Parts: sequence; C-alpha cells; structure tokens
Amino acid sequence: MIFNFYLPAQQVNEKFKGYIHKNKKVLLNEFKEFLSIPNIAADSVNIFRNAYFIKKMLHNRGLSAELLSADVPGSSPVVFAEIKKPGATKTIIFYAHYDGQPVNEKNWAQGLAPFSPQLANDRLDRNGKIIDFPNDNNIKDEWRLYARSSSDDKTGVFAIIAGYEAAIKSEVDLNANIKFFFEGEEEAGSTNLGRILLKYKDKLAADLWIICDGPRHVSGRKQVVFGVRGDMNVELKVYGPKRPLHSGNYGNWAPNPAMQLVQLLASMKDKNGYVTIDGFYDDVIPLSEQEKKAIADIPGIEETLKDEFKIARPDGEGKPFLELLSLPSLNINGIQSANVGSMAANVIPSIAIAELDLRLVPGNDVDRQLEKLKDHIRKQGFYIVDKEPTDEELSNHGPVVKVSTVGSAYNAQRTSMDLPIAKVVANRVQATSSEKIVLLPSLGGSLPLYLFEQYLDTKPITVTIVNYDNNQHAENENIMLRFLWEAIEIVAAIMTGEY
Amino acid sequence: MIFNFYLPAQQVNEKFKGYIHKNKKVLLNEFKEFLSIPNIAADSVNIFRNAYFIKKMLHNRGLSAELLSADVPGSSPVVFAEIKKPGATKTIIFYAHYDGQPVNEKNWAQGLAPFSPQLANDRLDRNGKIIDFPNDNNIKDEWRLYARSSSDDKTGVFAIIAGYEAAIKSEVDLNANIKFFFEGEEEAGSTNLGRILLKYKDKLAADLWIICDGPRHVSGRKQVVFGVRGDMNVELKVYGPKRPLHSGNYGNWAPNPAMQLVQLLASMKDKNGYVTIDGFYDDVIPLSEQEKKAIADIPGIEETLKDEFKIARPDGEGKPFLELLSLPSLNINGIQSANVGSMAANVIPSIAIAELDLRLVPGNDVDRQLEKLKDHIRKQGFYIVDKEPTDEELSNHGPVVKVSTVGSAYNAQRTSMDLPIAKVVANRVQATSSEKIVLLPSLGGSLPLYLFEQYLDTKPITVTIVNYDNNQHAENENIMLRFLWEAIEIVAAIMTGEY
Repeated sequence: MIFNFYLPAQQVNEKFKGYIHKNKKVLLNEFKEFLSIPNIAADSVNIFRNAYFIKKMLHNRGLSAELLSADVPGSSPVVFAEIKKPGATKTIIFYAHYDGQPVNEKNWAQGLAPFSPQLANDRLDRNGKIIDFPNDNNIKDEWRLYARSSSDDKTGVFAIIAGYEAAIKSEVDLNANIKFFFEGEEEAGSTNLGRILLKYKDKLAADLWIICDGPRHVSGRKQVVFGVRGDMNVELKVYGPKRPLHSGNYGNWAPNPAMQLVQLLASMKDKNGYVTIDGFYDDVIPLSEQEKKAIADIPGIEETLKDEFKIARPDGEGKPFLELLSLPSLNINGIQSANVGSMAANVIPSIAIAELDLRLVPGNDVDRQLEKLKDHIRKQGFYIVDKEPTDEELSNHGPVVKVSTVGSAYNAQRTSMDLPIAKVVANRVQATSSEKIVLLPSLGGSLPLYLFEQYLDTKPITVTIVNYDNNQHAENENIMLRFLWEAIEIVAAIMTGEY
Repeated sequence: MIFNFYLPAQQVNEKFKGYIHKNKKVLLNEFKEFLSIPNIAADSVNIFRNAYFIKKMLHNRGLSAELLSADVPGSSPVVFAEIKKPGATKTIIFYAHYDGQPVNEKNWAQGLAPFSPQLANDRLDRNGKIIDFPNDNNIKDEWRLYARSSSDDKTGVFAIIAGYEAAIKSEVDLNANIKFFFEGEEEAGSTNLGRILLKYKDKLAADLWIICDGPRHVSGRKQVVFGVRGDMNVELKVYGPKRPLHSGNYGNWAPNPAMQLVQLLASMKDKNGYVTIDGFYDDVIPLSEQEKKAIADIPGIEETLKDEFKIARPDGEGKPFLELLSLPSLNINGIQSANVGSMAANVIPSIAIAELDLRLVPGNDVDRQLEKLKDHIRKQGFYIVDKEPTDEELSNHGPVVKVSTVGSAYNAQRTSMDLPIAKVVANRVQATSSEKIVLLPSLGGSLPLYLFEQYLDTKPITVTIVNYDNNQHAENENIMLRFLWEAIEIVAAIMTGEY
C-alpha cells in the first residue's frame, strides 16, 4: 500500500470514462488495425506480425515490451511488459490472448471477412447495416465491430493496453506493480504456456493474475469469474469400406461408417442432454455453499437466451443454466462424412469424422475423462486405434475408430471467492457499475488457468468483458463498442486499485 | 425375322472382336474426347455440348440423330436415333445416360481431375501409374481410364454407338429395327424422362428396352439384369440455436443439433444394418422361386468384397449379399454439421444436415416409404417442417427437422425372366462369353425403369457392362479398358440377335 491522494472510486472512474470518450476515434482506428492482422495460431508469420504490433502499442504508451519464447519451433511468442511502482507491495499481472479461432470465411455474412474489420450500426442479423468508420468521436455505443477476435480476445489485449493509457493519462496513480502478458496460442490449446511460465517463473512473479477474456453476463452486467472449466478435444474417425461405394450396389451389405459413428455418438447422451458414459459425473466436486449462494444471486437468463437463440426446450430438464454449466460436458463440435447439399451423391462413405469437445469441472481429470470415453466406445463394440488402421486391422475388427486428442487437454481451475486481493478487484469492478456486478464461481468456457496455480503458485481470476452475443468461435464475430469502452474503463479501475 | 445367312453366334462375335481390336486407338481417343466434356445434369451448357457430341458420333456412323426435349426449362435433351431394317418385325431400343454424378474435385487422387481423362497402367491405388495415351493399337486390357462417367454411364453411350459401328463394319446384318436413346439427367433422378416417354410415345415404340448401365458381376462375369431397386433421396436438416454458440459458455444447456440428428439417425437402424422403422419391410414382395434359383446359381462374392474393401463384419448377419440387396435399404449418403479437422472450432452448431438414400423393392411404394420415415421421425419427438422454420416454430417446438425429398423418387421394377425376347438377349450375351453369364433378378442400384412399363407398356432389361471396382458415384471413377471393348462387343452381339 502506498500513500497517495485517493478520489472515491466512482469519481476516478469518471475520469477514465472522460478520457476514453475524448479518444474514441483514435482508439477505434488502432483497434481496427490490430484486428486486420490474421491471427490463427498455426499461421506463424502473421502471429509474429500481431506480436510486433502489440509491442508497438505498448511502446507508444511508454512501455518497453519483450517477446518471451517457449523455444519450441512454431510456437507463438508471449508479449511481456512491466511497470514497477516504487513502494508498491503487490504485483498484478494482466493476461489476454491475441490469437483467434480458425475461420471458415465462406460462412461469414455478405460484406464481412474475418480479417477486414467492418463497422455496422447494429447487429447485422437484426437490421444492422455496414457503415463507414467515422472521422470524429461521434461514435455510437450500440455500433458493432465485426472481425475474428474482435471479442475473443483482442478486446482483452487492447483493453489492457488502452486501460493503462487511460489510467496514466487521467493522472490517477497506480499503486501496484503492473505486468502485461499476452499469449498467442490460447485457441490452439495453450500448448506452450506451461513451458513459458516455468522458464520465466521469476519474471512472471505476481500476487494475482487478471484474465481479461470471455463474455460478460447475458444480462449485460459486469462480471468477475473465479474459475473456468477444463477442456479436451477428441476426434473420432470411423472407417468404412476402403473406398466410397455405390449405395445401391452395396447398400444393406457394406457397413456405413456414418451410421456407425452416429450410433456411437448417440449412445453418449440421453435426450435431456446428460452424458450416459459410465461414471462421467462421479468425480465431480459439488459446489460449495458460498458458490451456490453466489449463483443464486445471479439473475436468471434462461428466458432471454431461449428467445435470443429460439430454443424451445433446453437440455437439462429445466435445471438452472449455471447449475448445468457447473457440470462436465460433451459436445459435438462438428461431424462430417462424404457430402451434403448439391455435392451429395448416393454413396456409402469410406470415413466419418466427429470432433468432440469435453469440458471438465473441479474433481475431473483429463486422463480419467478420456479413459471413460474410450471404455464407453469399446463397450459399444468398437475397436480403437490411435493411428490410421492397417488393412489387417480393418479386415479383422469392425467397426474400427481412431480416437485422438487434438491440442492440449487441461483440468478445471477455481479460485476461492474469499481471497482478499481478489475481493479488491471485485470491488473496483463494482465501482464502475451502477448495477450489482455478477460474481461467478466458474465460467462455462475454458482457459488453462490451472497452470498459474500449478507452475507459479498464483491464483487467477477472470474479468469478462465482451457482449454475450459476440459470436466468438464462429462466423460473424463482433463486439458492441460500448463493451470495448467499458473494458478499457474496467482495466483502468483495476490497475488503480488499492492493493 | 428376316432371312439371312447366319454364322454361329460365337463366330460372329469373333468378327466384332477383330474389328474392335483393329480400331482400339481411334475408339479410345474418341471416348477420351467424350469424357472431357463436363456432364453434371445441372450444368446445362455442358450438357448440351455432350448431346451435340453424341449427335456427331452417331452422324459419323451414318445415323441421323435428333434431340428430344421435355419442353421443361433447364431439362437435358434426349439424343435419339433409329435405323429401320426392312422386313424386321421387332424393335430393340438401346438406352444409356450421358450425365454423371456431381464431383468433388479435391477428393480425386493426385494427377486426376474429373474431366481431364487420364490413362493408368493399373488401378492407381494399387501401384498403377499414369501413362500417356498411346499412338498405336498396342493398348493393354488391364489399363484404366480415369474420369467422371468413364463407367457410369458414358461407357454405356459409347458402347451402344461403337457396338453399332462394329456390327455394320463387320458386315453382320441387323435383323431388328434399332433405336438409340441417350438420357441426360439420370443422375439427377430422371425428372423429365416420363414426360419425354409420353410426348414421344410413338417414336419410342419398341419390343424391348436394353439398358446399358452398371457394373458387371464382381466375379467379372457378364450379366443380364431383370430389375432394379427404386430410389428416393431425403434430406434431414435439424435446427439448433439461431447461431453457432461457444460450446463452453452454453454447453449442457443449448441443445446441439448434431447430437439430435445423430440420435435420430441412430434410431433408424440396428447394429446389424436392419432398418428399425416400423413396417419398413412389411410390403416387400418376396422373391419368386425362379428368382431364388437364379440367385442361388450366381457365384458368391462376399469373400472377394470383404477382402477388396477391408470389411470385417458386413451388415445383415452373414446373409447372402444378393438376398440383402433384394430388400429395401436406408443409407446415410452424407452428414455435416459445422467443421471437422483443422477447421473445427469449439461450437454448438446451428444446423446439422444428413442426406439419406432409400432404395425400394417390388411391393414398396415411394409415398408409403416416405410416410413410414416421417412417422418414425415424429415418434422420436421431432417436429417436422417442409421449409425453413420460422422463429415461432423454433421457439415452440423442439427439436425441429426439415424433411425434404431431393430429386425425383421412384419405385422398383422387375421384368419376368421368362419373357422370350429377353431370353434371346440373354443368349446373345452368353454367346460372347466362355463362362456362364449371371442372370440377376434385380440390381441393387436404381434406374427409373418403371417408366417404360407404365408409360410405354414395354419391358426393360439391363445389360451391365463395367468393372465392379469402377468407383462410380465417387472420386477416381474409372473403367478397365477390357470392359470397354467387351461392352462394345456385347452391344454388337445383341444388335445382331435373331428376334
């Protein structure tokens, strides 16, 4: 704690708001330029362009940044910077990731492309029209900026940098050391994050990690999240005849791998959306009383979501949304066999593929979860291989499925809602808001936050920042500008907290 | 019957063989040029290029051809020609189709493209190499020509035309009137064939239709087929959330349309490949004693197929292949929801689509079959729509599936194995072969042959011509050249039969 003249938190926040308001045009243009750089983790050349751009943004704010490397060929660099506050006793490190989910450009709405940011005066699927970027600060809060990572998670990166700018330019003192940590392969499973944390353990020492990522509460309220689900991607590939066969000449005799795959997948869940794999829920640690209470305090959003997404009957037999998200999940991310639509032909396909996403909660373990899945697959009569099967394997076993994990898999993480430094953060965020903010025990989504506990013995908490209807991970990703400005303000408020 | 000097059938066939052998290079080059013209039924410009090319081929053999139109915009013309033999009492009409199945070029093997015919010295997936087209008649029987429709069914078209040439140039008299009928939208479901048959009923009058299409018996034996299964394509489209959702933030609550679709599809068949839709097999007319006997005479091919396609456990609990193909079928032609592989993302998809192919046998009816399918879908709890659902429908019913038939659907057809004129054809084909030919009550595949019975009161029989491993309807379609030459010989033999 350093001695300083403190304005009441709300008054400070007004300063940040004012600064942001006066600089909207400049900030928006800089953000647009940032979004124009493709950022798929596998695209190493562009990943480095992003890293250099972030370095330049930090440099322009008087911060000298460096790239931290995992020393793994093809890995993405972490962009790191820090500012030491003389006399400060605490260190807060801000995290966001600059890489984005893969894109299928042809699925984007007309006029949009993932890496050509466009502004619209409303949501495009709701009468919004694409508009020119403005030449002044007359920028409406409800406008939307469309681009890959406009919300997930370049908003996080940009808000952290611009939040620092807002704090400094508003002449509000920091009173903790601040570190900046921008990852470039989160959407690829943060394969090298652990390596980086270990290698730069001393440099990264901090009292708390603040993760800026994910959507705010559906009600629009600001939100602090104390945990995340773990995540594991598994690909299933079922093998049929060695080549596609005419469905008339061989149908009823040659087994169809698409039918075998759908039977396998169908066996994994019941009609209420519960996973029917033996023991799937057995090791789940139930919510604590405090977590249950926090959840009960959060306004229900089920009706809003049902209307927004046109869902008649949600999974989970009417159980509350947040209760369901506290359970592990199994989701079909994608499935494909042969072709549909105008490319469809009367064939028995030779392969069928499904991508699964399994989310984990405290108590679950990725290895155990994978074994449960494999046991289930075997019980359905499948022969499991871990690489392309030989002709001999195909001839001697049937049906044959290749089961492979994709990217890295990791467990869930939760930080206690009682941690004092985390309470300060929550109070700073609350001070930016006239409504009660949401304190969420765990996000449905995933980040490899267990790494901070495991490798650095530091707790993370997550401050979610973007509009919930941002289409992250899909086509037409966007951010409503109000959420961008408020993200900057939230970061400035946290940075200037009394730790 | 006309009076003429008849050589024994085998001796006549030697003449055809000799003629074909001397003209291999010329014939192969002409066929290659024919295959170079794209022939997807929806590609009207190229369809007409095919029709004109066929007209030219007929013209070059002294036959004047005409295009028969269904007078339906976008329909493909039939190429028709005829030759009247003075004194002949019977008329035989030869049918083949010049359109091909849709192509997905990226799935073709390296070096191949659907409409750039390539020659290989063996099957490419079995050490074959692409070779130059020859400048002489030194052309090996085992070479393969790769291109869309190289077997299905431009071989049929070309063999009919070249077979006529072989008969005439060998100076063997025809003794029936011969008609030529080449369809251009069979793979699109022969939507307008009925219209054409009715409109040109008199012009198309004949005693027998000979359909040249489909693969010969797997044993390599020549084959005459007395029937076909009917066919119906149905698309199922299941609707999830109005837009793709983050699988972490909404997983366990938002229903996944891919999971709903796989559960629906899985409910349609058991693990032995039998269809579990109520009453699916109820109206099947069992095989006659004669048909059963014919089937029993055909050499078993199950072990060959299992080895060829690397199938460990065929559908149908070990029942004979031909017995299973005498039943109606339900096949998944293709399935897709969101993306797999490198394009996969952690999403709950917003739609999931499957294409089904239902084959029908005598006794089945397309309308009844569709109703059985729909009843089954309703029993699984789905709400069926026939066009894109409104938001209101989505909000009030769940799960929602659009069920639509694709192309035209038609019933099975069978011609009695006792029909005298058909017996002559069978005997002529037998005379080209040193092995016992296969007489098959019904092909597993489909052609709208019911139309000839229904509209023209004429019976059709099918002479299959291509190698069974031709990859028809899929990538890398090919014909082994021996089968091309033999197809020409078979046609010449049938054309010169004593009717």
